[in-house]
Amino acid sequence: MTLTFEDFKPGPFGSFGPHHVTREEILAFAAEFDPQPMHLDEEAARRSMLGGLAGSGWHLCSIMMRMMFDGFIGRTASMGSPGVSELRWLAPLRPGDDLMLDVEIMEARVSRSRPGTGIVTVRNTSRNAKGQALCEMVSPLMVARRAGAAAEQGGR
Amino acid sequence: MTLTFEDFKPGPFGSFGPHHVTREEILAFAAEFDPQPMHLDEEAARRSMLGGLAGSGWHLCSIMMRMMFDGFIGRTASMGSPGVSELRWLAPLRPGDDLMLDVEIMEARVSRSRPGTGIVTVRNTSRNAKGQALCEMVSPLMVARRAGAAAEQGGR
Repeated sequence: MTLTFEDFKPGPFGSFGPHHVTREEILAFAAEFDPQPMHLDEEAARRSMLGGLAGSGWHLCSIMMRMMFDGFIGRTASMGSPGVSELRWLAPLRPGDDLMLDVEIMEARVSRSRPGTGIVTVRNTSRNAKGQALCEMVSPLMVARRAGAAAEQGGR
Repeated sequence: MTLTFEDFKPGPFGSFGPHHVTREEILAFAAEFDPQPMHLDEEAARRSMLGGLAGSGWHLCSIMMRMMFDGFIGRTASMGSPGVSELRWLAPLRPGDDLMLDVEIMEARVSRSRPGTGIVTVRNTSRNAKGQALCEMVSPLMVARRAGAAAEQGGR
């Protein structure tokens, strides 16, 4: 059941969720990591650009990581990621939001330096129940190739 | 005491910390947001590319947000951020690490569309006690200008 590099082809990969986010989770994350008033205080949030209590952008990213894990990373021969090449917060995460995560494969190629490893570049977009995009990120993932694939094909 | 756009000039801004990270915090974050074996299981982590238990990259980003808050965002007329233009995980976050955050101002300019708002682009680098860089991110922050600054200067 484990997904390897060979299972990732450019194009739409899947849509995962819903993942429910509570007010308590938003407040707990903000208290620990991002205690800015717009993430903790309803009144201050109403006066901010966010127009009401909104989760930290880093909370949303962390939730997207969990949705990726539940959606496919948890059953993928994943070896981690060197970073994120693009990360945009587009609309506020609200208490009670039910999120979906759309995953698109932008590119899948074998690593030049490590022929047993594939680099799968994904674009992840989280959306609320209205379909509004909240956050978009593009990230390379390192995924192991199927056993023997490197020897068979000599890289590609 | 509130910092406004006028307080941010290109160049080194400050070094903040230390911020201690415990094994319990690493495990708790991983269990909630990123339950990959290398973030939860010592034995699996030893066999992974990370070579031992390591915190989630998203945990490190969230800790860096907290260090920014404690270092200067908490006393800055900050209006949030539209995203991150570059994010690289360079070395593993380990249990017991004492982190420092180096903040450099890359650019500070007035918003074209909103003359009361400045855009301050920061480069944040988190380092462990050995000085090894763990994560680097470049991010634009929206910061309010000093009251009356837009009228005085008519933008710039």
